[in-house]
Amino acid sequence: MAALANNVESVTPVADLETCRMMAQSGYVVAGERNGIIEAGFELGNSPLAYLDGSYANRKIAMTTTNGTVAIEKSKINSAEILVGAFVNLAATAKYLKSKDNDVLIHCAGWKGKFNLEDSLYAGALVSSLAGDFEFDCDGAIAMKALYEANRADLKGFLAQASHAKRLQNHNIESDIDFCLTLDLYDIIGKLQDQTLVPQKVK
Amino acid sequence: MAALANNVESVTPVADLETCRMMAQSGYVVAGERNGIIEAGFELGNSPLAYLDGSYANRKIAMTTTNGTVAIEKSKINSAEILVGAFVNLAATAKYLKSKDNDVLIHCAGWKGKFNLEDSLYAGALVSSLAGDFEFDCDGAIAMKALYEANRADLKGFLAQASHAKRLQNHNIESDIDFCLTLDLYDIIGKLQDQTLVPQKVK
Repeated sequence: MAALANNVESVTPVADLETCRMMAQSGYVVAGERNGIIEAGFELGNSPLAYLDGSYANRKIAMTTTNGTVAIEKSKINSAEILVGAFVNLAATAKYLKSKDNDVLIHCAGWKGKFNLEDSLYAGALVSSLAGDFEFDCDGAIAMKALYEANRADLKGFLAQASHAKRLQNHNIESDIDFCLTLDLYDIIGKLQDQTLVPQKVK
Repeated sequence: MAALANNVESVTPVADLETCRMMAQSGYVVAGERNGIIEAGFELGNSPLAYLDGSYANRKIAMTTTNGTVAIEKSKINSAEILVGAFVNLAATAKYLKSKDNDVLIHCAGWKGKFNLEDSLYAGALVSSLAGDFEFDCDGAIAMKALYEANRADLKGFLAQASHAKRLQNHNIESDIDFCLTLDLYDIIGKLQDQTLVPQKVK
């Protein structure tokens, strides 16, 4: 989302490292890591902070992550459209979804195939933002909404409990988390068009 | 758990209806339902209330449920022992687990393969009861502990939000829920021995 909001041309999610490496030869900036380490030959890792100074404006990014890319691929089944959302554009994403008549399926990327605290809190925040305009009848949505609402006053403190193993794999996790928990920094949505995420301003 | 605490000889979890029906011919009381309806030829459904008056004392019960039996079967992989727990014996189960050196994997049965609010709240209650004696480093455990602790003062009110589709399939759900949310009614654990659950008093 930080990339999209900082004027990159597009972000292409890519499932495997090899495809990413090939895209580097076609002028893409390649970004990705496995187990918290930036891949050899990759210019960037997963940190959103890299995009904030506009260094990558007008560039095409090819991005692979351990979990996110897989979630996007799975979400393609039977979906009218796919958005990628984050706390930094929570209100914009909720506003856009309210303007449409589609059902919403929130797909958390997770971590190594498991339940992930920050993804689930975001899911709860989105459910909370949509409540009143959407009905939801799924225990997961109810639970994550309640979990978010009980901890919204101190999301960072709550997330500090999250899996140590996971946290130890990200050396800049504090600054990344501070950024990622900033609410509504951007008024764009991230929308998948063909195979690529593009920003779209929400009015 | 209600059956075990009310002097049945044993409860045998059974995956399929046909096996259950065969066991009825061997003297088992057969209990089970699919989609909230007691199966034809079965004496009992899923309600714990049926056992409270002692009518089934010294009987062997063969029980199949949509989700629970499947969870028990899956839990057999690599486990030192398997307990079945509920709010009605939360403290007893926690006390027993603390007396052992084993790691604890909490396996929620769920509902039709999905996240289930009441199972997850119980998981959170158990994590909360074990905290201090056990370390846990799994986001699911952290989230469910927080969800339980935020809602423990009114579990019934919180569960009233749960999936309508699910609730509509249980006609006696109010009295079943009241019973199931009673904390620490029993000082036994339910322990799987061979293929059968037996009660064991916790000192």
